Amino acid sequence: MSQAPTDIAAYMRQLGERAVAAGRAMSRAETAKKNAALNAIAAGLLGQSEAIRAANAKDLEAGRAAGLDAAMLDRLELTPARIQAMADGVKEIVALPDPVGAITDMAYRPSGIQVGKMRVPLGVIGIIYESRPNVTVDAAALCLKSGNACILRGGSESIHSNQAIAAVVRAGLEQAGLPADAVLVVETTDRAAVGELITLEGYVDVIIPRGGKGLIERIAKDARIPVIKHLDGNCHVYVDDHADMDKAIAVAVNAKCHRYGVCNAMETLLVHRRIAPMLLPQLAEKYREKGVELRGCPQTCAIVEGCLAAGEEDWDTEYLAPILAVKVVQDLDEAMDHIHRHSSRHTESIVTEDYSRARRFLREVDSSSVMVNASTRFADGFEYGLGAEIGISTDKLHARGPVGLEGLTTQKFVVLGDGHIRS
Amino acid sequence: MSQAPTDIAAYMRQLGERAVAAGRAMSRAETAKKNAALNAIAAGLLGQSEAIRAANAKDLEAGRAAGLDAAMLDRLELTPARIQAMADGVKEIVALPDPVGAITDMAYRPSGIQVGKMRVPLGVIGIIYESRPNVTVDAAALCLKSGNACILRGGSESIHSNQAIAAVVRAGLEQAGLPADAVLVVETTDRAAVGELITLEGYVDVIIPRGGKGLIERIAKDARIPVIKHLDGNCHVYVDDHADMDKAIAVAVNAKCHRYGVCNAMETLLVHRRIAPMLLPQLAEKYREKGVELRGCPQTCAIVEGCLAAGEEDWDTEYLAPILAVKVVQDLDEAMDHIHRHSSRHTESIVTEDYSRARRFLREVDSSSVMVNASTRFADGFEYGLGAEIGISTDKLHARGPVGLEGLTTQKFVVLGDGHIRS
Repeated sequence: MSQAPTDIAAYMRQLGERAVAAGRAMSRAETAKKNAALNAIAAGLLGQSEAIRAANAKDLEAGRAAGLDAAMLDRLELTPARIQAMADGVKEIVALPDPVGAITDMAYRPSGIQVGKMRVPLGVIGIIYESRPNVTVDAAALCLKSGNACILRGGSESIHSNQAIAAVVRAGLEQAGLPADAVLVVETTDRAAVGELITLEGYVDVIIPRGGKGLIERIAKDARIPVIKHLDGNCHVYVDDHADMDKAIAVAVNAKCHRYGVCNAMETLLVHRRIAPMLLPQLAEKYREKGVELRGCPQTCAIVEGCLAAGEEDWDTEYLAPILAVKVVQDLDEAMDHIHRHSSRHTESIVTEDYSRARRFLREVDSSSVMVNASTRFADGFEYGLGAEIGISTDKLHARGPVGLEGLTTQKFVVLGDGHIRS
Repeated sequence: MSQAPTDIAAYMRQLGERAVAAGRAMSRAETAKKNAALNAIAAGLLGQSEAIRAANAKDLEAGRAAGLDAAMLDRLELTPARIQAMADGVKEIVALPDPVGAITDMAYRPSGIQVGKMRVPLGVIGIIYESRPNVTVDAAALCLKSGNACILRGGSESIHSNQAIAAVVRAGLEQAGLPADAVLVVETTDRAAVGELITLEGYVDVIIPRGGKGLIERIAKDARIPVIKHLDGNCHVYVDDHADMDKAIAVAVNAKCHRYGVCNAMETLLVHRRIAPMLLPQLAEKYREKGVELRGCPQTCAIVEGCLAAGEEDWDTEYLAPILAVKVVQDLDEAMDHIHRHSSRHTESIVTEDYSRARRFLREVDSSSVMVNASTRFADGFEYGLGAEIGISTDKLHARGPVGLEGLTTQKFVVLGDGHIRS
């Protein structure tokens, strides 16, 4: 395929046309057919695992030659266990209820018409991601089940793996009598393809980028199509003075230490001044055992021996590392003000036994997930029962928080009459 | 106020800061307080109608001096009846249920946490509109009831009217103990203010433009904030050969002739070839009586005497006038293909007594409203029971079709635990 920019534009437009045509067929596909395709894909991943690993070996070789570091090579590698996990993931999506076609709120209006809403696919979804090739099948399976077509643009370092996986996906679609073009993988590594994809108005209905903040911000800036964004996760836990100490310690340790490099890990701990002298020394001991570095406000530093002084920038930092900012606050209002000023609106949790404060926190904190007496680590599509997630949205419009099948659909109004006219 | 661009940027940012602060207070305001504010606003509009009309007279005078045409001057004028209608509109919003805070789908997960969704305001809504000053109070009332703050930028020709109305709105908010800054009217007519408003990231959560297609396209192109768009309404009625003739005539006449200049008027009529020879002559007679010009495909022209020949561009035109494009089709599939190719995805209706075809049309036509045996003119917030609408969205994401109070809100996840941690 030619890599010249003029051809890239034509190539992407042609992908767009094929995706729109396939999307129409997918939108009316019965659940049983979509599930048959998913089962065929799961079987194909295992049956074709040799071919997938051979393609993956090419990517790994090229990656080593290009000097990718060990962590990137690890993300790129498809072991038999990872191929099995991909197939298992597809099987899980078979088991999820099909959201498409559900009609809700159907009611008669005074005029005599009936009005309701029907859940329908978005149409064509563009997904832009970085190195992990498993995203190819995860994203394809979610789009397929929700009745959408998708155009996938993976990282150039995983191009062979992605194409091998796409071949399995497309064969599965055809086997079930669905159009192979419902899943299209961009077959050029030319970066111009991304620029074309995010401006394919009239063909692509939404763009979902998966990757670092830099990638997502660039895409959001240049896109002419709505983007479901996942920026950062600067999550807070506030321990109220009416907290149960055991719960506070359990939640604060789990939210920070369960995994460090994830968006739903706590990055700042806020502690009510009355409970700080009891709680912080105990917590500091736990964090010390785990190797977590503390950066505290002056009051924290006065209580916790050896605590580093936090700078203003610490309150805005998503560490994704064993580092935690700690601040002592006067009361719930100061905690919520701090969250309002510094949070990325991902996930915040209060630890308290006080009913009224819990109620206020839930209502007033403006984040995609708000919690009482639970670890921020629960902010996740599987934990929430969505079955799988294509990402976590930090946007407010359309989808907020973990995005599952329903986030890949929209609703249209359905009106039933009997020759009704407006007077 | 200075009109220099550098000051405009600072001025708009300051409006943004005030709106965010007011929005936080509005998001936690009780329904009774919001309703008290709305009642005070309705009373204020009537009580201050002299002052509003005096301000409006200034706009009318400036408009005449600037040579505005009669239609524009009419849209601009606030008669006592129109002020009464504005007050009545606000009273209707008092009667609507408050969507904020509703918790749905709350359920226990296997981990023991409870997960549900809470409906919450979007935050700050920027509304950009043209000449009608009544939009100022309609938009303010909807934003207020849904717990949002708003920044309103009306047309420069209605600046005095808008400011007088805003003064009433702000007084009503204060009377109810709510922040006046929940409704901010941009007080400069400098066009740079629009450019600033649509790029106020971090302050404004969504932009809703109300006006012509040109305005909306310009805003969508330059905005850095999500835009709820209402582009055009190229609506279709398809009369199937299994249609009831009386219903077909009633719906086709009403959809075209009830009002011409509205987005939910039919612009193209599609007729099954088997029913065309009976239906079209009768319909043509009705349209002739109403003064509607017909532009038909060759088959239509062969049936309807004196019908003009439609050009390819007619299928894509939103006439907003007593003109109708008419096309004879082979079957339902050709009708749906035509709609897929030419519709603006606003509203389409099928007239048929055939159960399976109605079912297919509802599922497969990808428009914000799909109807059976009903006039496209029903696509409207009041008719659908939303109570009022801030616009009709032709977008797919977030809000689709008429946008009422719920469209001005979003949902966040709520998690309740008892010291739960993730294992």
